[in-house]
Amino acid sequence: MLPKRTLMGPGPSDVYPEVLAAMSRPTIGHLDPAFVEFMDELNQLLRYAFQTQNTVTMPISAPGSAGMECCFVNLLEPGEKVVIASNGVFGGRMLENARRCGANPVVVEFEWGTPVDPGKVEDALKANPDAVALAFVHSETSTGVRSDAEALCKLAQQNDCLSIVDAVTTLGGIELKVDDWGIDAIYSGTQKCLSVPPGLSPVSFNDAAMDKVKSRSTPSQSWFLDLDLLTGYWGPGAKRAYHHTAPINSLYALDEGLRLLKKEGLENAWNRHAANHVKLREGLEAMGLEFYVDAEYRLPQLNAVKVPEGVDEAAVRSFLLNEFNLEIGAGLGPLAGKIWRIGLMGASSSEKHVELCLHGLKAALA
Amino acid sequence: MLPKRTLMGPGPSDVYPEVLAAMSRPTIGHLDPAFVEFMDELNQLLRYAFQTQNTVTMPISAPGSAGMECCFVNLLEPGEKVVIASNGVFGGRMLENARRCGANPVVVEFEWGTPVDPGKVEDALKANPDAVALAFVHSETSTGVRSDAEALCKLAQQNDCLSIVDAVTTLGGIELKVDDWGIDAIYSGTQKCLSVPPGLSPVSFNDAAMDKVKSRSTPSQSWFLDLDLLTGYWGPGAKRAYHHTAPINSLYALDEGLRLLKKEGLENAWNRHAANHVKLREGLEAMGLEFYVDAEYRLPQLNAVKVPEGVDEAAVRSFLLNEFNLEIGAGLGPLAGKIWRIGLMGASSSEKHVELCLHGLKAALA
Repeated sequence: MLPKRTLMGPGPSDVYPEVLAAMSRPTIGHLDPAFVEFMDELNQLLRYAFQTQNTVTMPISAPGSAGMECCFVNLLEPGEKVVIASNGVFGGRMLENARRCGANPVVVEFEWGTPVDPGKVEDALKANPDAVALAFVHSETSTGVRSDAEALCKLAQQNDCLSIVDAVTTLGGIELKVDDWGIDAIYSGTQKCLSVPPGLSPVSFNDAAMDKVKSRSTPSQSWFLDLDLLTGYWGPGAKRAYHHTAPINSLYALDEGLRLLKKEGLENAWNRHAANHVKLREGLEAMGLEFYVDAEYRLPQLNAVKVPEGVDEAAVRSFLLNEFNLEIGAGLGPLAGKIWRIGLMGASSSEKHVELCLHGLKAALA
Repeated sequence: MLPKRTLMGPGPSDVYPEVLAAMSRPTIGHLDPAFVEFMDELNQLLRYAFQTQNTVTMPISAPGSAGMECCFVNLLEPGEKVVIASNGVFGGRMLENARRCGANPVVVEFEWGTPVDPGKVEDALKANPDAVALAFVHSETSTGVRSDAEALCKLAQQNDCLSIVDAVTTLGGIELKVDDWGIDAIYSGTQKCLSVPPGLSPVSFNDAAMDKVKSRSTPSQSWFLDLDLLTGYWGPGAKRAYHHTAPINSLYALDEGLRLLKKEGLENAWNRHAANHVKLREGLEAMGLEFYVDAEYRLPQLNAVKVPEGVDEAAVRSFLLNEFNLEIGAGLGPLAGKIWRIGLMGASSSEKHVELCLHGLKAALA
């Protein structure tokens, strides 16, 4: 039997007991009329979480990385230009996806730990008037940085580009308004601020994005992620044609997680994430620890904390895991060894979690 | 709350209570050292189920369709020729996958309800000496037909082709010997004879297949399904690099399902599937119902039964669902309206299931 951990890394976060219970409900058929009703209700809950009326709003049957790939393989055709604003691991992954689609990526790079600068993105869009899309990460999980999604989507619109937004670590944790901000295509994950086990990627596409999908001259390179085929199963429309077998029990879990979010209220959830971040920050600063990211760009749900000089960061993580059954995250890429990533996401964003983490770190650094 | 059904369609099948319980264990981190050990044990159980020693044996984090796509996007490069033996829906899906990889597919078609004829495949391989792979479906879920995987893989070897085998409905239900039969690449699903909820696709690749992957001149078109990256996380090798977040709880379920299979014994499971098929067949024939597939090619776990003249097949399925909470499957494509598909897979392959189905059908057809 695996040990019971407290999850305060970059995800997965702790899962609500109600969600785990939902996941173990008896499996039903993926074409059962009762399940089709369930799908419609689930998608309605997703629209609430995304703050959108988009018809095409549904969970992809695979983790967030597949949600990213779904956006790229459907919205880009070979040779088409996409501007990618990259300020961490997931911007880099967008580039990989664009390349593998045979698209023509133009990357605007930003230092890790800093947000995407809309001014530089605007320059890139002006310099590349043939770009069809602008892609960026709203909440960069590798660095704990928030970029200004609203401003960036406005730039995309002004420059006749579709926006593709990574909201894997955003959804349920900080403000996100798909319709108000004019986001064209967005993907997220379940295992961050929704506190649902990993394995699904909620996505949403507006009419402009779906028009691009429908006007493709070639089918998407991915059969599994083809939006034309996926919408044949998920709707809109009464006929639900078999595409692949939906991951029924994972969908039960997502449904329950979204119900809990709705019960709490989206803004209340955002406020809770913000408040627990303040508590963690105060505690860390009292211990003399520093944040890696400037205050105004910090994600409350993902805290990048500098490893103090002379401290073996991996030893601290092992100590926390072994002595407290507490998981925090390591730095990635150029930040490996330099930061810890402390998640306060979903069920893991609570006063109790903040206290455990501070207590554990004090013991580790004593 | 969704109704509790008895699942006797083409999958998902009924899930063992132990598997549902495992799925709701507390989520752990996907890079936790304890989870990495769990992964190794899970893959060892998968090797048993596949009867292989292949190092690269693991579950893909998405349903069987993604397992199919994983094989095609990794083993084929644009322009390469692949011979596809097609005798149902899933052979057709292989063709779609090959096209979307930019490969050059040569399709050998067989009538739905009949097996792949090795003689015709041999002719196609001889006529296409530049083919790099032969792909076929072992257990065609759309028709309930078993093809001779051993003979077809031998032909692939003799003609210097890799074999790509769809074993979605095979694994745990009928004889399958990956190493003995010389299968190079194979994918399966969890929601058929393993009786685990849908969402994962166990795959296995031998050295010849991995040599092909490693010698690619271009990266796979899919980042999410790239075997080079996936093996960086799943192993072999001590370093487990983050690729995507694994669907932890779904993997708990698969692990438990495989433990139950090992406890029963693979051959015992095959024999159970065969024995319950005989019981169902006897009952159906006593009612005057006929099978669609010739006796020697029938899958015991998926029974294609002819809809009697003048009977509204959809009304019968609705009656069973509404009166008995019993799901059986419809025909697909050219077989829509002509057959029912009755699954006796995994936990749904029991005497009790056979009796319920016969009882329900008698009531429906009375």
